[in-house]
Amino acid sequence: MDTLIQPKVLKGFRDFLPEAEITRSALIEKLTAAFRSFGYVPIDTPVLEYAEILLRKSSGETEKQVFRFEDNGGRDVALRFDLTVPFARFTAEHKDELYFPFKRYHIAKVWRGEKPQAGRYREFVQCDFDCVGSDSAACDFEILALMKTALSVIGVEDVTIRMSHRGVFNRFLANRGLTEKSEDILRTVDKLAKIGRDEVIAQLTDSTGSAVLAEDIVSYIGMEATFEATLAHMEKMAGGEADDTRRLRDIRAMMEAAGIADSFVLDPSITRGLDYYTGVVYETFLNALPSIGSVCSGGRYDNLAGLYMKDRVPGVGSSIGLDRLIAGLDQLGALEHKKSYVQAEIFCLDAALAAHYQKVASQLRAAGIACEVFPDAKKIGAQYAVAEKKGVPFGILIKPEDAERNVLTLKNLTTREQFDGISVRDAVACIGEAR
Amino acid sequence: MDTLIQPKVLKGFRDFLPEAEITRSALIEKLTAAFRSFGYVPIDTPVLEYAEILLRKSSGETEKQVFRFEDNGGRDVALRFDLTVPFARFTAEHKDELYFPFKRYHIAKVWRGEKPQAGRYREFVQCDFDCVGSDSAACDFEILALMKTALSVIGVEDVTIRMSHRGVFNRFLANRGLTEKSEDILRTVDKLAKIGRDEVIAQLTDSTGSAVLAEDIVSYIGMEATFEATLAHMEKMAGGEADDTRRLRDIRAMMEAAGIADSFVLDPSITRGLDYYTGVVYETFLNALPSIGSVCSGGRYDNLAGLYMKDRVPGVGSSIGLDRLIAGLDQLGALEHKKSYVQAEIFCLDAALAAHYQKVASQLRAAGIACEVFPDAKKIGAQYAVAEKKGVPFGILIKPEDAERNVLTLKNLTTREQFDGISVRDAVACIGEAR
Repeated sequence: MDTLIQPKVLKGFRDFLPEAEITRSALIEKLTAAFRSFGYVPIDTPVLEYAEILLRKSSGETEKQVFRFEDNGGRDVALRFDLTVPFARFTAEHKDELYFPFKRYHIAKVWRGEKPQAGRYREFVQCDFDCVGSDSAACDFEILALMKTALSVIGVEDVTIRMSHRGVFNRFLANRGLTEKSEDILRTVDKLAKIGRDEVIAQLTDSTGSAVLAEDIVSYIGMEATFEATLAHMEKMAGGEADDTRRLRDIRAMMEAAGIADSFVLDPSITRGLDYYTGVVYETFLNALPSIGSVCSGGRYDNLAGLYMKDRVPGVGSSIGLDRLIAGLDQLGALEHKKSYVQAEIFCLDAALAAHYQKVASQLRAAGIACEVFPDAKKIGAQYAVAEKKGVPFGILIKPEDAERNVLTLKNLTTREQFDGISVRDAVACIGEAR
Repeated sequence: MDTLIQPKVLKGFRDFLPEAEITRSALIEKLTAAFRSFGYVPIDTPVLEYAEILLRKSSGETEKQVFRFEDNGGRDVALRFDLTVPFARFTAEHKDELYFPFKRYHIAKVWRGEKPQAGRYREFVQCDFDCVGSDSAACDFEILALMKTALSVIGVEDVTIRMSHRGVFNRFLANRGLTEKSEDILRTVDKLAKIGRDEVIAQLTDSTGSAVLAEDIVSYIGMEATFEATLAHMEKMAGGEADDTRRLRDIRAMMEAAGIADSFVLDPSITRGLDYYTGVVYETFLNALPSIGSVCSGGRYDNLAGLYMKDRVPGVGSSIGLDRLIAGLDQLGALEHKKSYVQAEIFCLDAALAAHYQKVASQLRAAGIACEVFPDAKKIGAQYAVAEKKGVPFGILIKPEDAERNVLTLKNLTTREQFDGISVRDAVACIGEAR
């Protein structure tokens, strides 16, 4: 006999048992419905791509984390580490087959060899939605509205979406001669929540060489009481009205028209760090658990696929970190758990009735009831125990004399209430009512 | 400026454009509903596993095809090449957390570095469903019934599921002292459809060293006019009634009770070659396109996870080769194609009405209508053209005077019929009726 191999997954990787996968599937199905209702369509791209394509523009940090290897044909390949780079490659490769503005969603796994820690995995699901080929405020608004709707359909109502505009910040910095230092400044501002105001001022004083400028920047990133007041403040500090602040006003008007303005705040400290964004940017926090960080972030970029083609394709997009969101919701007790989809378990009282049980099962399924036949004539207690552990709401008991008369006993496994000698049709009605 | 990188996928890999991905998603959603209605639950496992776990029991052929590499931590890892080996590992690892009989489905990508050719890809979707922890006829039947249901819900009614039982064949061979030669014999029998009866006899004569035995085997694998007659013939040649033939009779009785017997034939030439099956085995052919081979195959095995644990877990399962099935259905013109989920396109007649358009869109979505706002005030002809290419059925036109009165024009983009000055509510009713 072979020695046994210890069954185990790789560090940072996870199995999903039915309960967890049912939860994840339910969220994905609801998100999918939201995307479709906004006119977004699905695409798919390979998990494995040429490393050159995935990594050309990446930082050293990304390169270190990527799963990269030489395939059997000697090609330098890598597992995708996000869905954005493949989408850029996809858009360039298929630009003549797509209709612009092109709106796609893509819910799929990505891989990063990060140091495993709480809530960080090497394999995780991202959920991206982007609209490319238009630079209009309507698209900016649409993504923001879709973020709100997507979170809402999965029961996440208590959120704050913090948004800003990189263009306004860039103007503000340019007016002070700080454009060249903007990388450092953005990096520092991005840490505001983590390191606090005083430390930000200290670091900004360091990088700008001026305590006055540091104070000025911290003043710029401060919020006023309302969206409008903050916008007026940003506009003033950036040197007056321009396309960028007009854009924020246009988006705000649409939010008000659509009745969703309350979920959004204008927060000039949101910059999305060193990312490639050029327009609006946003992050989303669970009000009850802001500490887990943003669960849905994104922004506008002015050229999606510049590495792969000459045409400029502007776009705007957002990404839900599904696994982080699930972890957060779990912590808040906001996830529904279920272990099975079965509505009725047909218990096996008599092996000689096996064919009859299957007949009843097929009648129930034809009537839309998810059911299963317990396959072995085990002790009824053992059969009940399995059904109970799976959370099956109804049991069906059929003895030989019932089978002859084509009736059954329906038992509510929670209340123990039972209905004897009823027809399959009555059972369907009864189970249907309980849903 | 950077030189451009040519955007292209790896050989044998594919992008799915919206139309193809919408089709694939629709099939997956329907299959998922069928699995759930039979009490199957989803699980997920990592794409990447220890190579030792994936490859211990595999043939040299598999090893050559697998994407295997050393990760950054020096681990010998590989991309899964099927969903069965990971399921075996999963069952062993989580046996104390599962409820047996355990019924799972798993629809996911697998990777094999096969030589790319028509219908063969290096990345493809498998769709597996197994019931483990019971050796009952009820489970054998359930998988077969689920195969029939799953194909039926995706519109594939015209199929023949060819089934047999490896145990009966083994008895037949044992009675003739051919057990040791069974590998060769099975391999030859498996090629019947490809190489024809005469060549099979020639090869069998070779491997058994006897023309009489060769004729005998070919007689055994021949079908009679009915399931019952074939079963009687197999039984006689294998040495009489036994558990294996009783099992086939029990399954047949359940098929008759459930009213699905017509889709199944007993075909003793079905052996599933050298696979690890020990009981019933089956393959499924599209009657209109048998040449593409089996689109759904499987069988019963007596020990799923023997490499990873001492407990024996018998099971029965089946797998749909989704990409092959899609290729077949496409060839038969049996796939629905659609390019978008949008039911109504709100055209942009006046950029000043952008917020109003979004308001109407949010009202339509709240009423369950998938819609989108054309984001730019392009020429109306260009906007129509995009909506038409995407197959959007309705257009909504709102001029400033309409916006003031809170009405709109609804246009059926196929018939060009149009309704002027109607309310959003009337539009919802009208679009709903057309569904």
